[in-house]
Amino acid sequence: MALEHPITADELRKHSSPENCWLVVNGVVWDLGDFAPEHPGGAAVIHKYAGQDASAVYNSIHAPSLIQNELEASKRIGKIDESSMGPGPDVSETKTPASPSTAKNGGGRRRPLLTLLSSHDFEKAASENLSDKAWAFFSSAATDCITKEANAAFFGRMWLRPRVLRNVRDISTKTKMLGNDVSLPLFVSPTAMVRLAHPDGETVIAKGCSKSGIPHTISTNASYPMADITSCADTTFFFQLYVNKDRAASEKLLKQAEQCGMRAVFVTVDQPTPAKREADERVKADAVALTPTPNGAVATNDSRGGGLGRTMAGYIDSTTNWEDIKWLRSVTRLPIVLKGVQTAQDAIRAVEHGVDGLLIGNHGGRSLDTSTPAILVLLELQLNCPEIFKHIEVYIDGGIRRGTDIFKAVCLGAKAVGMGRPFLYAANYGPEGVEHLIEIMRDEFETTMRMMGCTDLSQLHPGLLNTWELSRMVPRLTDAPQHLRGPQSKL
Amino acid sequence: MALEHPITADELRKHSSPENCWLVVNGVVWDLGDFAPEHPGGAAVIHKYAGQDASAVYNSIHAPSLIQNELEASKRIGKIDESSMGPGPDVSETKTPASPSTAKNGGGRRRPLLTLLSSHDFEKAASENLSDKAWAFFSSAATDCITKEANAAFFGRMWLRPRVLRNVRDISTKTKMLGNDVSLPLFVSPTAMVRLAHPDGETVIAKGCSKSGIPHTISTNASYPMADITSCADTTFFFQLYVNKDRAASEKLLKQAEQCGMRAVFVTVDQPTPAKREADERVKADAVALTPTPNGAVATNDSRGGGLGRTMAGYIDSTTNWEDIKWLRSVTRLPIVLKGVQTAQDAIRAVEHGVDGLLIGNHGGRSLDTSTPAILVLLELQLNCPEIFKHIEVYIDGGIRRGTDIFKAVCLGAKAVGMGRPFLYAANYGPEGVEHLIEIMRDEFETTMRMMGCTDLSQLHPGLLNTWELSRMVPRLTDAPQHLRGPQSKL
Amino acid sequence: MALEHPITADELRKHSSPENCWLVVNGVVWDLGDFAPEHPGGAAVIHKYAGQDASAVYNSIHAPSLIQNELEASKRIGKIDESSMGPGPDVSETKTPASPSTAKNGGGRRRPLLTLLSSHDFEKAASENLSDKAWAFFSSAATDCITKEANAAFFGRMWLRPRVLRNVRDISTKTKMLGNDVSLPLFVSPTAMVRLAHPDGETVIAKGCSKSGIPHTISTNASYPMADITSCADTTFFFQLYVNKDRAASEKLLKQAEQCGMRAVFVTVDQPTPAKREADERVKADAVALTPTPNGAVATNDSRGGGLGRTMAGYIDSTTNWEDIKWLRSVTRLPIVLKGVQTAQDAIRAVEHGVDGLLIGNHGGRSLDTSTPAILVLLELQLNCPEIFKHIEVYIDGGIRRGTDIFKAVCLGAKAVGMGRPFLYAANYGPEGVEHLIEIMRDEFETTMRMMGCTDLSQLHPGLLNTWELSRMVPRLTDAPQHLRGPQSKL
Amino acid sequence: MALEHPITADELRKHSSPENCWLVVNGVVWDLGDFAPEHPGGAAVIHKYAGQDASAVYNSIHAPSLIQNELEASKRIGKIDESSMGPGPDVSETKTPASPSTAKNGGGRRRPLLTLLSSHDFEKAASENLSDKAWAFFSSAATDCITKEANAAFFGRMWLRPRVLRNVRDISTKTKMLGNDVSLPLFVSPTAMVRLAHPDGETVIAKGCSKSGIPHTISTNASYPMADITSCADTTFFFQLYVNKDRAASEKLLKQAEQCGMRAVFVTVDQPTPAKREADERVKADAVALTPTPNGAVATNDSRGGGLGRTMAGYIDSTTNWEDIKWLRSVTRLPIVLKGVQTAQDAIRAVEHGVDGLLIGNHGGRSLDTSTPAILVLLELQLNCPEIFKHIEVYIDGGIRRGTDIFKAVCLGAKAVGMGRPFLYAANYGPEGVEHLIEIMRDEFETTMRMMGCTDLSQLHPGLLNTWELSRMVPRLTDAPQHLRGPQSKL
Repeated sequence: MALEHPITADELRKHSSPENCWLVVNGVVWDLGDFAPEHPGGAAVIHKYAGQDASAVYNSIHAPSLIQNELEASKRIGKIDESSMGPGPDVSETKTPASPSTAKNGGGRRRPLLTLLSSHDFEKAASENLSDKAWAFFSSAATDCITKEANAAFFGRMWLRPRVLRNVRDISTKTKMLGNDVSLPLFVSPTAMVRLAHPDGETVIAKGCSKSGIPHTISTNASYPMADITSCADTTFFFQLYVNKDRAASEKLLKQAEQCGMRAVFVTVDQPTPAKREADERVKADAVALTPTPNGAVATNDSRGGGLGRTMAGYIDSTTNWEDIKWLRSVTRLPIVLKGVQTAQDAIRAVEHGVDGLLIGNHGGRSLDTSTPAILVLLELQLNCPEIFKHIEVYIDGGIRRGTDIFKAVCLGAKAVGMGRPFLYAANYGPEGVEHLIEIMRDEFETTMRMMGCTDLSQLHPGLLNTWELSRMVPRLTDAPQHLRGPQSKL
Repeated sequence: MALEHPITADELRKHSSPENCWLVVNGVVWDLGDFAPEHPGGAAVIHKYAGQDASAVYNSIHAPSLIQNELEASKRIGKIDESSMGPGPDVSETKTPASPSTAKNGGGRRRPLLTLLSSHDFEKAASENLSDKAWAFFSSAATDCITKEANAAFFGRMWLRPRVLRNVRDISTKTKMLGNDVSLPLFVSPTAMVRLAHPDGETVIAKGCSKSGIPHTISTNASYPMADITSCADTTFFFQLYVNKDRAASEKLLKQAEQCGMRAVFVTVDQPTPAKREADERVKADAVALTPTPNGAVATNDSRGGGLGRTMAGYIDSTTNWEDIKWLRSVTRLPIVLKGVQTAQDAIRAVEHGVDGLLIGNHGGRSLDTSTPAILVLLELQLNCPEIFKHIEVYIDGGIRRGTDIFKAVCLGAKAVGMGRPFLYAANYGPEGVEHLIEIMRDEFETTMRMMGCTDLSQLHPGLLNTWELSRMVPRLTDAPQHLRGPQSKL
Repeated sequence: MALEHPITADELRKHSSPENCWLVVNGVVWDLGDFAPEHPGGAAVIHKYAGQDASAVYNSIHAPSLIQNELEASKRIGKIDESSMGPGPDVSETKTPASPSTAKNGGGRRRPLLTLLSSHDFEKAASENLSDKAWAFFSSAATDCITKEANAAFFGRMWLRPRVLRNVRDISTKTKMLGNDVSLPLFVSPTAMVRLAHPDGETVIAKGCSKSGIPHTISTNASYPMADITSCADTTFFFQLYVNKDRAASEKLLKQAEQCGMRAVFVTVDQPTPAKREADERVKADAVALTPTPNGAVATNDSRGGGLGRTMAGYIDSTTNWEDIKWLRSVTRLPIVLKGVQTAQDAIRAVEHGVDGLLIGNHGGRSLDTSTPAILVLLELQLNCPEIFKHIEVYIDGGIRRGTDIFKAVCLGAKAVGMGRPFLYAANYGPEGVEHLIEIMRDEFETTMRMMGCTDLSQLHPGLLNTWELSRMVPRLTDAPQHLRGPQSKL
Repeated sequence: MALEHPITADELRKHSSPENCWLVVNGVVWDLGDFAPEHPGGAAVIHKYAGQDASAVYNSIHAPSLIQNELEASKRIGKIDESSMGPGPDVSETKTPASPSTAKNGGGRRRPLLTLLSSHDFEKAASENLSDKAWAFFSSAATDCITKEANAAFFGRMWLRPRVLRNVRDISTKTKMLGNDVSLPLFVSPTAMVRLAHPDGETVIAKGCSKSGIPHTISTNASYPMADITSCADTTFFFQLYVNKDRAASEKLLKQAEQCGMRAVFVTVDQPTPAKREADERVKADAVALTPTPNGAVATNDSRGGGLGRTMAGYIDSTTNWEDIKWLRSVTRLPIVLKGVQTAQDAIRAVEHGVDGLLIGNHGGRSLDTSTPAILVLLELQLNCPEIFKHIEVYIDGGIRRGTDIFKAVCLGAKAVGMGRPFLYAANYGPEGVEHLIEIMRDEFETTMRMMGCTDLSQLHPGLLNTWELSRMVPRLTDAPQHLRGPQSKL
């Protein structure tokens, strides 16, 4: 049905009703009348832009390739006659559609990358550089943000106990995650919608990881199709899965992940229902197109303010339970890691169900406020079932901001730690930003290793920490299986 | 004695002495000379307005129907000739007698209701919208407000321990209070003088509860007669009783409560004497009429600043003691709940005296500063006499502001929780405000249920919490009765 | 040597050298040449005012009667010819010698007394009303003020456990201190130099106490002679003694105290050396006459800044030790109370040495910073040697600001509590101020009694408190005498 | 090669390339072409000033005598013709080369020395007086400064338990450090680059210590040659050693230390690798000459921001280990103290290796953030191996700011305590500043002794402290050697 001649603005405007609904996206006119009712972000936003150019709002969260991938070719009407389009009010709010993330500050006015000395500096820069909507979506957490802040603060309540007079000239920070070599016990936790931070979205994180040799976990809600991400860089990739109410959609994603060479699936288990993130919901979402994510997830808008987080979580299957691990095993050959385990009880259960790994964490405090700070859960495992670390790989994320935080988590049994938000903030600076952040973390971690008198990760153990302030706050299980308890607590 | 012709301002002014004392209230002239000495708020305020229009100050806290109900018809002199009344200085301070609650901001300038996302937002809006006097009366607490703040803060010192991979698609939050169905384990705690928040007073709370299916507890010090409240909405009502020095007055109220179909009486036991609320007392009370409450309570002004709270507590019988439970049983067939129990010792005693329920709490910190935070008392019961929850229904109020707070209280044994101040703040927005607040709480509580892996209230138990920081602060009783101790602490 | 005719300013100026040194004090010319070297505040300040009118600086800390009492009549030269004196530069800094305490604000601009609702309000008013020097001297404490602040804050870390449904209509707050009836378990702790707060000095406190029936402890460093104070009011007086290096001076004071009808001597044992109070020392002392106190103590200035506190402590005998209790017994028949006991060990030792009472405290945090908060010491006695309270009367001061604080101290065994600084602040308002403060404390304490379900002081016991947060911070003695330990801790 | 005639600016400018590189330092022209590549601070800064006057930047951190000492005479070209030199842009940024430390405020505008009453006052004054670079270098600590702040704060979490009624007229604060008499249990911890605080560098500290009788520990990274320091004052000197990768360089320094009459070597063991001090690294280092230290240490600049701390730590040998104690014994006859021990395990090991002393500490929080606060480590020794204090002298530094801090450390077993930063701040005021600080500390310590009832250091013991809040945070060793455990804990 594509027209040969460019479509003029006058012709476009004739199709500005729900029944007759054309939109321009990046110079191409599409007929979205049939699609609108299926649009996960709701038909309203499509109808709002009927007969107009919707590029700006589209580009703010979608990869350019998405619309071609998702729609049938028959819906493509043709090219727009750019000369006929005036600067209409519909695009006035975002003049630079190619750089949605720099809405607040132009690139040239940002703090220079080399002046950023820590993950905290990246956060501060992001608060200055990102649009209000992006900053709200990335930085927010559940309700009063108590868990978000405690995640980080609790690391500062454990003291290091350095051992002196060790030869620490040559050290190694190498380890393995599920058999894959990594240069540091660090990986990028899955984060949604990186395009809000940088027009190239998740690819900038992938490229940064590639240079530094650390794994990248790709979110179901990524801005870019996963193949676009995995093909752009050479590093270890993991796939994060929200189980879809439509199980076939999830199975399709798992197949794609395998085909893309991903090495494990991180199944999120700590968000069976949309979370309440007030800061996110306060920023009006009406100018942002809420659409299906490229990986096929289905989201719905609702009346609670339209926060991006709540909207995107709409397709998640709240019936998922322990029995579904069998289903997962049946549809993928990837190792399975449960993301969001928060008690020793569930960690033990995970071992019993034969999964390959655990990611201790609480979604960065984004799911349920006052859920237990992540490092306290790790300590709970050490005090109740220290032998568990011999049976399963345990990771942790939430609040890790310093090399000392990584060190402490590894001392308490973590095989590796994930960082999420800091990488979103670094992505704003492109691949160089991501690489710079990783090298900062590496320098801090190596410095910590040497100061602690350690030369490789096998030397890290709980006795290098003073956890006495926190260990009094740890629940003691009376029914942990004997073989996981270990002979005696090492703390 | 009512005159046929309208009374002119000139005639009114002839009756402006204590001995010859007419006042205008809402267009009607009353002879208040005989009543003034019996006026619980003192004769002074009546004499001050002798020969003048007192509608503004009357309406600020009384229901329009009160004066007809309470005075004999013979005291009604007639209608005032409105055209003869100039805008006298006596009414200049409150130009909008019909809307006493919006003295500070007009209705149109308030934050829109739909932008309020949490109970905290309602509090912030109320601090902007209410008059100084109303805000001081509602928001104040005893002396340094340590208990008021700790009530809320202590909820944040207990961590949630979510269980993952449960099917939480279908959940129920239903429960019963004393046999009455409620849609949430939530009820409105009694609050005095709601007319300070909205001209329709307690009826707006009742209407909001009616739509949402949660109970409303009506205060002895309500602005409106209880029948006006219970007849305007279809929900479960409880009656809060301050035992009057004049026991016959209390008995009359209990009969009225039964006739109005109330389902229980909440006898307040935590305020045998007026409390010291400095913020309330700092706001001068001289322009506010201190009068008998519609439910017959008698209040007296005194020299300590005239705080509304201190004045209205004057009639409370400070001799009330455990033996009086027999008297209560003899004068009402309603279930009896003790409101304000604060120790395990008194909880045990309540069981021994055969009452039907307990409301753990400290009057929102308004009675005695540094009294124990409410949730710590509930924990005290769990640790010392966990079997008590099988013998008696236990409720709690004080500091509940989030769905997670409700969840934690229910885990520790509460059958339901009450909220007070937030409903006063919501009442400022009318029934829609109250309903909006309840739906916010419902959404938060349901989200918490799902995130915790729970599908109905029977699954909640202390093991879902990490209370180790607070449990070290709980007194251990050595003399709790054996049958209430339970086999072993579940914490 | 007194001259018959008034002395002119010209004649006065001829005596302006150290060798020939006349000064005017309140209209009288004195020859201070011989006295200057013995002036405890140093000769410098006298020589500075030689040939001038020194009334302003004299009046700022001394009673008018002092100079006649202390100097021989032969040193009185005569009256000054006021008409010959111009407004010289020497008096320009304090124009209102009769009201030294109102240097900052005139009396008329102060907050009205009846608007002060709590001891905190008195402190705030004093910070506005007092001169910089007076505020610094009264409000300061040792070095970083950690103990001063902890004294008060630790009361807020103990929770009250109210018992409900008690008949609390009629209550009594009466008790005895060393056999003397007091209307409240409250007394005025000794405070130096009250004239800095009010021109009538200690007499305003005495008069305020007299009306309210609480005891007043008069400091060795009082501004007024003790007989002036005790003769002006009818209440119980105690005498606070700093043991002088010149023991005869102390013995003379004790005799005076007996003659004045005082009922006990409080011997200060927590300040054997001058303390470092930086805020006090920062305010230059050079315009303030440092002189002997009326009770005969001798002070010396030094090079460390001239803080009033350090200067006045110079005469204290640092050799005083337990053996000196025998000497005290030999020179006075008054009951002996040790003021400033800070450990269970010393409390036990005090019992062994047969003293009559103990005042637990740390000089309001003014002696040694980071010394133990007073209420923690009282708890230390309860946990280690609870029987001690049967052998000796125990008082406490430091940080008491609320009626709940008094209640808590009595629960933990205190027979009565002292307040110091708040009475200095109240003295600024004259006797009415002192009385108003006492009535505030009485109202708060009575309210607390009723809210707690108590009708007389015999019902107060440790079980009414939740001290579990603090009791974990209390040292446990292994060597407390068996008969003082009691059968079992009541906590 | 020295020229007879003064060299003109024109001639100088001909040698402004890396290959032909003359610089003026304090009026003398040097040929630095050959030396530049060996310059530990990097060749860049030398090349930058080729053909120019580099006196300002040289003087900001080097002693005037350094360049003659370190370079061969043949490199001295001659004197500059001052009249030919204009005020070139190269010196414009520091107009007062002789007073590098007063870059911010002129000497006359500083707070007068006598108004400084405490070590905190010295810190405040330094923050006002020092250049940004000097303040950043001195005041900074590792990453988030958690340990730096906890070092000080933890002293405030231990309470003093004063004993009353002791004769404390005559007291002695004398003790010995490794057999050397000291007037106070206080010494100056090693601090680098004192010239940033005062042009006379370490000599001002030495002179101040000399008058007050306390030891001075000279840093490997001192601004002045050690002989210049030790020869200028008569006090006990210790030498702090960073073990150099070039062991011969270290051996040479140790020989010099012996020849200078130093009494011990403090071998730093808590910084085997450069630390990350962000505040230091934020201040650009490009105008500061990074050069070899006079004691022969070799530093290198790098790409991480050029913080002085990171640069100067470059030569430290990260292979140093316990076996190297034998090497140390073989190359020096000085007593050996390990500086930076942070666990009971390493303290025990130090005893086993026969060293003479331990300095408990964490480099003032400058090495590794969240390492254990120093006083907590001392408490760890007391609780796990109290007998260790009989076998070895134990010192401590980190966070000592008050006389009470010294007292507490000695109670817990420290033979003496070190202070670092406060002496840098005092050095800004010259020898008088250092002496004033010492006398403040002496006054505070003596006051504490008397207030505590102690007359000499032998009476100090753990029972004088309440450490119960911190002792719960101390790790308990299960494998401490029996002979070091002692019969029973004294706490």
